[in-house]
Amino acid sequence: MKHILAMDTRGKKRGGETPLLCAPLVGRTRKRVVAEAAKVIAQKPDVIEWRVDYFDAIGDPDAVIDTARALRALAGKLPIMFTRRSSREGGEEIPIGDEEVVDLYDAVGASKLVDFIDFEMGNDPEHVTRVRESTRRHKIRLILSYHNASYTPGYEYLVQRFLEAERLGADVAKVAVAPRDRMDVLTLLAATAQADAKARIPLISMSTGPLGSVSRMIGGLFGSSLTFAVGESASAPGQIPIGDLVTVYDIIRRARGGEML
Amino acid sequence: MKHILAMDTRGKKRGGETPLLCAPLVGRTRKRVVAEAAKVIAQKPDVIEWRVDYFDAIGDPDAVIDTARALRALAGKLPIMFTRRSSREGGEEIPIGDEEVVDLYDAVGASKLVDFIDFEMGNDPEHVTRVRESTRRHKIRLILSYHNASYTPGYEYLVQRFLEAERLGADVAKVAVAPRDRMDVLTLLAATAQADAKARIPLISMSTGPLGSVSRMIGGLFGSSLTFAVGESASAPGQIPIGDLVTVYDIIRRARGGEML
Repeated sequence: MKHILAMDTRGKKRGGETPLLCAPLVGRTRKRVVAEAAKVIAQKPDVIEWRVDYFDAIGDPDAVIDTARALRALAGKLPIMFTRRSSREGGEEIPIGDEEVVDLYDAVGASKLVDFIDFEMGNDPEHVTRVRESTRRHKIRLILSYHNASYTPGYEYLVQRFLEAERLGADVAKVAVAPRDRMDVLTLLAATAQADAKARIPLISMSTGPLGSVSRMIGGLFGSSLTFAVGESASAPGQIPIGDLVTVYDIIRRARGGEML
Repeated sequence: MKHILAMDTRGKKRGGETPLLCAPLVGRTRKRVVAEAAKVIAQKPDVIEWRVDYFDAIGDPDAVIDTARALRALAGKLPIMFTRRSSREGGEEIPIGDEEVVDLYDAVGASKLVDFIDFEMGNDPEHVTRVRESTRRHKIRLILSYHNASYTPGYEYLVQRFLEAERLGADVAKVAVAPRDRMDVLTLLAATAQADAKARIPLISMSTGPLGSVSRMIGGLFGSSLTFAVGESASAPGQIPIGDLVTVYDIIRRARGGEML
């Protein structure tokens, strides 16, 4: 497993090979996002993710940047991930189009208020290229992601999603897929381990929903560098409270004689 | 997952689909076994396993039955598993031959002091048949087991071990194999899930050692009905303390919305 924060000047490294814990913020207003952040940060996540597709004022770049500034003030050196999750991949419906999302990403990147930007690799290839160029220019790290809220594709396809994200220039590759049965959970874990053996960049993966929730506990053993955990509100089904994950990671570390892998 | 204690008049069923916790006893003398049992039972395992290959007086059937009687007095209705683990499959060297082991199993079965007997399916087929007939006669449940302390065979072979145990008349099939890498852990889990979909009897499986220890936490989700956990002393590498497993099972149950699968 590669350290997702290895290049991060703001971030601390987490000990051993334990995945980072990332808590999502899903407030609809500046006030709610800031209140949520304050509560979440008290639980000591490693990263916070602002899911800006939940933000009512997403169409107003100044409002977005103003809220990002408030988040940075609260977060201090804690890394911030900035994500508009597309409604095609499980996010909220938003009042702006993809073109404006790319412009918003560029403006937020230029502000240097966030550390990571997440963009779906299935978006218009020209948009992917623009977001890649913009994040490079602003020295923001890019997560290229693949989500499937309906089913879990096959092993080969999943391995390819990670490697395709790398080929497109991602700093981190993310795959989140919904299992239909317990074998799908093992397929996601096996594909992550195989991609981790091949990829040069850190990976994030999870099998979603109650059936997949165990992947959030043990994914670190199979090459996933980060887990989304519930700080204040879940942003996806199957997310587990931060405190529970910290407990499980401690037990896994002890059982493995001090290290995750 | 099938309930391993469903037929057990002594046993209680554990709630939901959480695997049973079985604590091994590995004392070398009657005094040590009894002291160990007292401490282990206080931790409320679902089953205790007496690993009689650790017992210095294994060659003296009266001494074995006397100790089994002391264990039953301590255990009350708690199910007891009686196991001579063959040195070929990771157990201790013992001063008696396989023929005498079969006779010992018959004597212990006749005493009705134990609930389960574990015998390796790789033993002399005639011995397997004799143990099967003896346990049926005494109404003791038979676990036929396969252990590989060196490596993890392929998926198909593992599935076949479970089904072969059933074909040979087992009441429970057990497979424990050592992983060489993290993919081996997933192979064991996948084979267990596949066998669970086909077999009519309950299954027990684990990937051993520190690398495999996570299988003891999540194996229940993939069809393993029982986990060996450390009460007082571990009987195999990678076993986890009972209290830690209870904690992990609670977290898994919450994350899955109240049930293990």
